[in-house]
Amino acid sequence: MTQNIGILLFDRVEELDVVGPWEVLAAWTQQHPGDGFRVATVSSGGSPVTCAKGMVLTPDYSFSSAPAWDVIVHPGGEGTEVLVKDEEHLDWVRSAAPLMTSVCTGSLVFAAAGLLTDRPATSHWATLEFLEVLDPTIEVRPDDRFVDDGDVITAAGVSAGIDMALHLVSRFAGSSRAAEIKHYIQY
Amino acid sequence: MTQNIGILLFDRVEELDVVGPWEVLAAWTQQHPGDGFRVATVSSGGSPVTCAKGMVLTPDYSFSSAPAWDVIVHPGGEGTEVLVKDEEHLDWVRSAAPLMTSVCTGSLVFAAAGLLTDRPATSHWATLEFLEVLDPTIEVRPDDRFVDDGDVITAAGVSAGIDMALHLVSRFAGSSRAAEIKHYIQY
Repeated sequence: MTQNIGILLFDRVEELDVVGPWEVLAAWTQQHPGDGFRVATVSSGGSPVTCAKGMVLTPDYSFSSAPAWDVIVHPGGEGTEVLVKDEEHLDWVRSAAPLMTSVCTGSLVFAAAGLLTDRPATSHWATLEFLEVLDPTIEVRPDDRFVDDGDVITAAGVSAGIDMALHLVSRFAGSSRAAEIKHYIQY
Repeated sequence: MTQNIGILLFDRVEELDVVGPWEVLAAWTQQHPGDGFRVATVSSGGSPVTCAKGMVLTPDYSFSSAPAWDVIVHPGGEGTEVLVKDEEHLDWVRSAAPLMTSVCTGSLVFAAAGLLTDRPATSHWATLEFLEVLDPTIEVRPDDRFVDDGDVITAAGVSAGIDMALHLVSRFAGSSRAAEIKHYIQY
């Protein structure tokens, strides 16, 4: 049974929050299909999204056409300012996948959805204080590149998504596989 | 006078080769418009391209609709296997911009176009030998993250494009500006 990793796209998502993890996870799943994972992009409506810096990305799936997700990568970006108040989106976040991971301000959406209550977490350095505003029970970890709390993983800002994705490869396929992908992308 | 930086898109371009530099250059140009630069994406025909790992990116311009470029970023990826033999593309490369920069196997296209004759250069670690096959006069630098030879800059594999783009910010707007963008993307 192949496990599905979905990377969420939305309007004003931060470009590198998406493509850092994408590069790592797609390189891994395509070079090692026997590991039993695949990765795809998904947006609410399935239409192309315009990112925070203006790049246009076309998702593979809409919420309704997507497979069941085993892992979700929720990127950050300016668009999260809308998502933290979007009850429909927060409902989706609460049941989107058994393993939820975020990059950058994606963790603010997790906080707003209640996913981080009484848990350690991180975010982009400029928004760490908003984690506590959204949920004072969060144990904010300002010095971690990413925080793995079992079924929720949060990463720090933008490029930290690359490290978090390499950690996912390590967690699912071992540290030597992760080292191989890191070498491939010369990171 | 605004100077235009163009990032080339083509079929089977490597995703992070594009979006690493894009993130750095777009963050810089949008947060500091007074520095006098802007960045956009361009492809030959202007239609969406399917990248090496399957992501679909929509360019801002075609070759015919694009402004005059002051700087080109030529990414790498599997698609360069076609481009190194595409005389029309090599002609474009020879006159695309006064400053030509590459990421990963983009330098193989520069080598095929004759841009690297008697110059130091680098590429993805797995393709360094092809630089010499394409042009034996190239001084291959396997240990450099990027090589700045004045009007041609080549970067190593995939994520090294982020370092090369930060170097461009430093070259055009100073090292403190580059440090600010590096901090913003938490790299």
